[in-house]
Amino acid sequence: MKFCSQCGSAVTARIPDGDDRVRFVCDSCDVIHYENPRVIVGCVPIYEDRILLCKRAIAPREGSWTLPAGFMENGETSVQGAARETWEEARAKVEQQQLYRLFDVPGINQVYMFYRAVVINGECGVGPESSEVGLFKEEDIPWDNIAFPVIYHALKEYLSDRRKEEYPIRVSSINR
Amino acid sequence: MKFCSQCGSAVTARIPDGDDRVRFVCDSCDVIHYENPRVIVGCVPIYEDRILLCKRAIAPREGSWTLPAGFMENGETSVQGAARETWEEARAKVEQQQLYRLFDVPGINQVYMFYRAVVINGECGVGPESSEVGLFKEEDIPWDNIAFPVIYHALKEYLSDRRKEEYPIRVSSINR
Repeated sequence: MKFCSQCGSAVTARIPDGDDRVRFVCDSCDVIHYENPRVIVGCVPIYEDRILLCKRAIAPREGSWTLPAGFMENGETSVQGAARETWEEARAKVEQQQLYRLFDVPGINQVYMFYRAVVINGECGVGPESSEVGLFKEEDIPWDNIAFPVIYHALKEYLSDRRKEEYPIRVSSINR
Repeated sequence: MKFCSQCGSAVTARIPDGDDRVRFVCDSCDVIHYENPRVIVGCVPIYEDRILLCKRAIAPREGSWTLPAGFMENGETSVQGAARETWEEARAKVEQQQLYRLFDVPGINQVYMFYRAVVINGECGVGPESSEVGLFKEEDIPWDNIAFPVIYHALKEYLSDRRKEEYPIRVSSINR
């Protein structure tokens, strides 16, 4: 950040009075520009014994496989955002969404929220950010080409939980 | 937002190519300025049969009672942020943090994450954003002066869960 989004003056990076962190501050109009973590919402979309995965058509990690997920938008809930991303990336409508897995990724200022969900009628397709979309049995998951550690962990945990038929909500921190 | 934080030019509110939402876009340097929900992290801090509450010394809702909570910061995890806020607002150190309650508040673009936690030695004090801090038994909670609906719901649910000695992680949407 170089300029104040309110008045257009140059900003300064300094600790504001009464604060203990460096922020971008506008010395012209006195606005403090806070920067905070973003929320990534997504689904672990299931149909029968298969998991929906998308091959990324965009950077980062173009060509690798991921669960449908993306930045939560203003004005929506996390469950709505997770369903929206699943539609946008995999043209799948979901139901029975249940909060399943949270990851803190402090190194890149992100919080992931994954919902387990059922793909209605098993229908899916290729959204604009994907080059392929498919429903994978456990033995067919492309483990050597998973986009991000959070995706790898969520998939491994889901498969383990499925064997026990118990799906506890977990939260942990991960570095990417 | 009126000016581009990268180059200082005036921004335009329009739907960028390939998008479906209005964003602030800089037509001079082509940066899209995304705005996303913020995460509020906090604790339900417990000591024996009592719950720690803080009387707000700042707007909004100055003079009302709240659980310690505030904006998650870049570079921290949600559990670290919840502990940090509990220290800043109530000078209490916590342990045994367990994810407990998530609220989506889409009307104000916020996601709340509350952790249950134990106040070490029951020690607390008045931080700079509080005018009073105390550990309250159920019958002493100031129900008619709770700061926000999310706080009211989290407290009521905690007390109900405590009677059953079961603390399921819940997520729901609320309007403030």
